[in-house]
Amino acid sequence: MRTEFQQIPGSVVAPKGFLASGVFCDIKRLGTGKGSNRGLKRDLALIVSEVPATVAGLFTTNQISAAPVHLCRAVTTRGRAQAIVANSGNANACTGRRGMADARAMAAEVAAFLHLPPAQILVASTGRIGVPLPMANVRLGIRQASALLGNAPEHAAEAAEAIMTSDTHPKVAAVEFNLDGKPVRIGGICKGAGMIHPGLSLTGRRPPAAPHATMLAFLTTDAAAAAPFLRRALSEAVARSFNRITIDGDMSTNDTVLLLANGLADNRPLGGAGPRAARAQSRFQDALNQVCLELARMIVRDGEGVSKCVTVRVTGARTAGDADAAARAVANSALVKTSWCGGDPNWGRIIDALGYSPARIVETQVDIGYAAPGQRSVAWCLRHGQPTRIPFARLCAIVAHREFDLHIRLNLGRASAVLYAADLTEAYVDFNKGDVGNPAARGG
Amino acid sequence: MRTEFQQIPGSVVAPKGFLASGVFCDIKRLGTGKGSNRGLKRDLALIVSEVPATVAGLFTTNQISAAPVHLCRAVTTRGRAQAIVANSGNANACTGRRGMADARAMAAEVAAFLHLPPAQILVASTGRIGVPLPMANVRLGIRQASALLGNAPEHAAEAAEAIMTSDTHPKVAAVEFNLDGKPVRIGGICKGAGMIHPGLSLTGRRPPAAPHATMLAFLTTDAAAAAPFLRRALSEAVARSFNRITIDGDMSTNDTVLLLANGLADNRPLGGAGPRAARAQSRFQDALNQVCLELARMIVRDGEGVSKCVTVRVTGARTAGDADAAARAVANSALVKTSWCGGDPNWGRIIDALGYSPARIVETQVDIGYAAPGQRSVAWCLRHGQPTRIPFARLCAIVAHREFDLHIRLNLGRASAVLYAADLTEAYVDFNKGDVGNPAARGG
Repeated sequence: MRTEFQQIPGSVVAPKGFLASGVFCDIKRLGTGKGSNRGLKRDLALIVSEVPATVAGLFTTNQISAAPVHLCRAVTTRGRAQAIVANSGNANACTGRRGMADARAMAAEVAAFLHLPPAQILVASTGRIGVPLPMANVRLGIRQASALLGNAPEHAAEAAEAIMTSDTHPKVAAVEFNLDGKPVRIGGICKGAGMIHPGLSLTGRRPPAAPHATMLAFLTTDAAAAAPFLRRALSEAVARSFNRITIDGDMSTNDTVLLLANGLADNRPLGGAGPRAARAQSRFQDALNQVCLELARMIVRDGEGVSKCVTVRVTGARTAGDADAAARAVANSALVKTSWCGGDPNWGRIIDALGYSPARIVETQVDIGYAAPGQRSVAWCLRHGQPTRIPFARLCAIVAHREFDLHIRLNLGRASAVLYAADLTEAYVDFNKGDVGNPAARGG
Repeated sequence: MRTEFQQIPGSVVAPKGFLASGVFCDIKRLGTGKGSNRGLKRDLALIVSEVPATVAGLFTTNQISAAPVHLCRAVTTRGRAQAIVANSGNANACTGRRGMADARAMAAEVAAFLHLPPAQILVASTGRIGVPLPMANVRLGIRQASALLGNAPEHAAEAAEAIMTSDTHPKVAAVEFNLDGKPVRIGGICKGAGMIHPGLSLTGRRPPAAPHATMLAFLTTDAAAAAPFLRRALSEAVARSFNRITIDGDMSTNDTVLLLANGLADNRPLGGAGPRAARAQSRFQDALNQVCLELARMIVRDGEGVSKCVTVRVTGARTAGDADAAARAVANSALVKTSWCGGDPNWGRIIDALGYSPARIVETQVDIGYAAPGQRSVAWCLRHGQPTRIPFARLCAIVAHREFDLHIRLNLGRASAVLYAADLTEAYVDFNKGDVGNPAARGG
């Protein structure tokens, strides 16, 4: 990232012309949803642009994908949309034809209340798999959310709360910058927590070596942009952010990233030719990258049971695919993750994971080191495959931090990769052991 | 397996002409190893054939492989060996040239005491990575072990104890059967516990779609067999046993399976042509398969923190590679494994894992069910991608067992795969969080 863009409040309603709301309509069927939502987490979010917007979307590459994902793929292919309706508590996944009809009914309901074409409504769901949506509750929620739309930061915060599942707090970000002398804003909200190892793609084909989250991210901007440019820009931002995080290596059926660009900033539409257009596009890309990376890292920090966030930096790989594969083998190794949980800078498990990764590794070339957050100097514990004389206590002091960097140099080429990873804790196991009293499957 | 062979005592010394011993020589450098080994686990094993034997070996496909693995590859390529020396407490991995010299010195020491050619001594190590072997202790251990060799079941049991690391008990098996009217025996010992997801191969090339154990298994037989036949037979047995188990998805740097066939049973040497030879070979294969599968399943049952052993049975896959990939995605999913730990028959996480596996899956074709141990009737919870009406309590009653079967039908073809998997427990995380007071890396 070349520039740090100014952070502003408001997330998805920071850009001009966007409204949001979040309400409780008891989608989990707690049975207590009688009018009042005090003390109960909101579970239905609505984000609306005042004017039709250009849209881009990336979706899970899981072969089992939920009904709302199918619906959104069709809308984003057409390239125009005006609203996003999203619920938590139920993934509407593995729900067959009824699931598809329910997703369409959600879009139709929003369209009817807001007087919009149904084909311009995006739908997203997250929560239990295999249980039909309680459509009476959903319809009530959509009615309430439509009535409560607003453009204050609180409205966006309510939407961010409504998409949370096991997240412990809402995740929001927004930045402001200038294009053609006009102020432009990008905002976003997201949710994560478990089943986090996204492999999002525009096409449904898996990005190379980037396999596996329940994560939803909704981004808005008042920039004017052509649809092809918007798709490319979102792909690039996701490749550097949401597709670079892993909590447990499990990829969800519902992962969705959506970006609406309504053009109300009145800049020259992004996607044109020439050096001036290229500069503007590059500036927009940098800002979008920043918002996506901030949101993605919030997901890792708030992952289920996470006690350590580790930035895995692989350099010197023969190919980009090798760099990625090496980073993922280390970041998804149960033994490496548990050692981090224990504050143990265990390089033996790291080199073991590198060795079984599909990446080309030469034992006598591998360097492994740790660096404290924000520090450039790396404490190397392995050089050319051999342990160094670094005091063990120094390594432990680094790994005792809640966040630190792991540096791996393969010394075989020039390719590199970064992955934002989490440790594996007893709290993760305890959380995910499941509530056997509950017949529905979590996920999505 | 067509026949169940008769179990006999004695493991590696059950076949004629084999001797074993296991001693304590303080390889972990506990600092208390002054002559007495009372209360301290043995850590050096010796297995010796009275006559030169044909040998076959399969080794880790991890690109980082320990010095003793390099040594054994060379010996098994030549096809003749007479002794195996193995230590626990130190993997002799990532130890550079010194490690290679130490492995050779172990072979030389055994050769000197037993008056054998050094090129016929196999070496194996398991334990910490990156720490040089304490060779003075190892030499003392080899001297003691050589003096204490014997062919009583206790001698084999001591060898089995000596190769244990985090295993809670020694793992031994042996069978007897007839070839050409002559009694033939196959015996074995093994160790496992963590870093268990073997991908063993004869050639160093990974078996197709069978990637990732610290596991050592030493097999002996008094059958006479030609080296090429022995290699094929061991490959087939390992493909159906040690390469079908997974605890944590981590593949070790030291995985080794060795088989010595000394010919003292005086059968017609296995590996010849003709229907009679084929029948004998098939009988030997069945017996070897049985011993390997028994030992492999002992490893899963005794895995670190394991509370459930699950046999994952995938059928109806398009290809064998797909069947294997589908089974591995499910068996290595952190979310699936934690749900088993909680006794939760969570099919949502299973279909999610199938969906992100590289195997071809069609949501509307997938059936998922559970069966209690030894029961043929499957309780199907998902049919054609849709939840069935089976009472949830019935599924929970199955998953409450310590061992049960998971049945997955993809209904896309005729290929199938079986995997012996373990759950993921808080005890696993606690065990592997590591002892930060200990600078050496576990593994290997």
